[in-house]
Amino acid sequence: MSEIRKNLITGEFVLMAPERAKRPLDFVPPPKPSEVPSFSDNCPFCPGHETMTPPENFRLPATGAWSTRCIPNKFSALSPDGDLWSKFSPLRQSMAGVGLHEVIVETPRHDLTLANQTQDGMDTVVFTYFERFNAFYRDPRVQHVILFKNHGPAAGTSLQHPHSQIVGVPITPAQVRFRADDALEFFNETGGCMFCETLRDELTDDARIVTETAHFAAFIPYAALSPFHTWIFPKRHFGCFGHSTVEELADMSRILRDVLYKLHRALSNPDYNLVLRSWSPGDTRAEHLHWYVAIVPRVTKMAGFELGTGMYINPSMPEASAKFLRDAGTPE
Amino acid sequence: MSEIRKNLITGEFVLMAPERAKRPLDFVPPPKPSEVPSFSDNCPFCPGHETMTPPENFRLPATGAWSTRCIPNKFSALSPDGDLWSKFSPLRQSMAGVGLHEVIVETPRHDLTLANQTQDGMDTVVFTYFERFNAFYRDPRVQHVILFKNHGPAAGTSLQHPHSQIVGVPITPAQVRFRADDALEFFNETGGCMFCETLRDELTDDARIVTETAHFAAFIPYAALSPFHTWIFPKRHFGCFGHSTVEELADMSRILRDVLYKLHRALSNPDYNLVLRSWSPGDTRAEHLHWYVAIVPRVTKMAGFELGTGMYINPSMPEASAKFLRDAGTPE
Repeated sequence: MSEIRKNLITGEFVLMAPERAKRPLDFVPPPKPSEVPSFSDNCPFCPGHETMTPPENFRLPATGAWSTRCIPNKFSALSPDGDLWSKFSPLRQSMAGVGLHEVIVETPRHDLTLANQTQDGMDTVVFTYFERFNAFYRDPRVQHVILFKNHGPAAGTSLQHPHSQIVGVPITPAQVRFRADDALEFFNETGGCMFCETLRDELTDDARIVTETAHFAAFIPYAALSPFHTWIFPKRHFGCFGHSTVEELADMSRILRDVLYKLHRALSNPDYNLVLRSWSPGDTRAEHLHWYVAIVPRVTKMAGFELGTGMYINPSMPEASAKFLRDAGTPE
Repeated sequence: MSEIRKNLITGEFVLMAPERAKRPLDFVPPPKPSEVPSFSDNCPFCPGHETMTPPENFRLPATGAWSTRCIPNKFSALSPDGDLWSKFSPLRQSMAGVGLHEVIVETPRHDLTLANQTQDGMDTVVFTYFERFNAFYRDPRVQHVILFKNHGPAAGTSLQHPHSQIVGVPITPAQVRFRADDALEFFNETGGCMFCETLRDELTDDARIVTETAHFAAFIPYAALSPFHTWIFPKRHFGCFGHSTVEELADMSRILRDVLYKLHRALSNPDYNLVLRSWSPGDTRAEHLHWYVAIVPRVTKMAGFELGTGMYINPSMPEASAKFLRDAGTPE
């Protein structure tokens, strides 16, 4: 019997379709065609090729050989220079595409995917995320910052060298505003945080928890939009990633490494998108909001039904997927 | 200089990114690997294999060899039997996944894609759409009907034999409601239909029109979400596809055939999704709404940025894409 579940946080309805349900192993993709070398002659992100990219805006460590490196996106979706303008008519609304778009090279090694990082390496990546996230919000034109990673061709990346991206847009996207509105309405009605309550519910139920640390929990939500769709929530209630403590960043690094390792092992290096969803440090409503990380393995495809309705069909059961990940081991 | 345009009808912001802009030819995918046979021994949709599918609910013509055939989806996302139930708690909302899900086999020929249909064949497909659309709404459990087609693996299909799908869900999806709200607000503010005004604006501007018939116009919208994203609007103002006249259906068949032919020729048989977006025949607000067809070639990928913001990056200019399609010829 199919069941329609509502994802409270995204507002989306999901068709949980057990008639289509597959076992977790059915989502393991076919083996990748070839070995990836640790260095590539043509890769602009490999060490020694720094002149193939625009000059870096940030790097760690500050001197010597770099571990992470942040460079303006050569094919930026936004213009780094120029003034904000906007035009408005009832039928046509437009504004300057002014903003920031950077690539975060996660490692000098061409083949070292984030899922296989050492703990030290992951710490450096997370600290780089934190630095650039806060730096982007210091640009007065930037209203919203989105940090994401596309891993593999099905997730939309064309460059193999491990990298993330960060974009600062001059508006707050409608989707972000709508979700904030929903969370504020929940607060008005219940007096509680929608995210804290969801986390409490998941920790109590325990059936969909993937892994847990002192400051974070990772779980497959009750109304997961797609197979192995995983959320990592901070346990402390705060709306902006940029307000994390050093302890929380170190702990985030641990749980992120654990979750990516489990996905890599369980699903044999799946293509995935990772998105850090945070509110702006200056948003006064953020006291009622809560940031988090979403990881979406691209093991099924969005098709006409999803495009036409905004609803999702999920052919997997979140409880079975969570168990499959829990059993996939932990990194050393 | 990048520009952010708002798509009035979907509510989405689009980053028009000329720094990334490609020429139309850059979106032509690599050639398909092999020839498709006109008949396949293993295909459940080929003639003679009717017992491999559940019994048909509808066919045209009613007797003799069939041209189109409608069968319950063997891997239905919804359960065809059972009562409507719903459970509500502040954190978990769910309801019975009761509804209808059918496959519309468009032709007996395994290799005859919709873009290559004869005019007679397309007429039959459009009339079949019309019949099943209205039949689905006669089921009292069905609140919303979505008719769509996934063509090619990037668009999410696994079966090669040309087919469309139709789903009747027991709720009105949130996305559909939000878009109706936006259109009603536009009506309240301006006294006009958002769709009629958009169509008038596009026909006046003329730069993004792909083709036009007596009752329909096809265009790439001012804020197209992705390259070659094409809309087909009826010129008459009405909210429900199921209220089309016989003349309009025949004309819809002509323009649909022309648009799909142009896309097929210009982009060398691209994978695409087609979605028919219509309001319910019983919706009293539909007098202020307007149905239409959307065709989304899958020539770029949605990635972390789109997932995390609901915004889109479009690396093509709608005006150049429309010209490229206009120049691609017309079917005989």
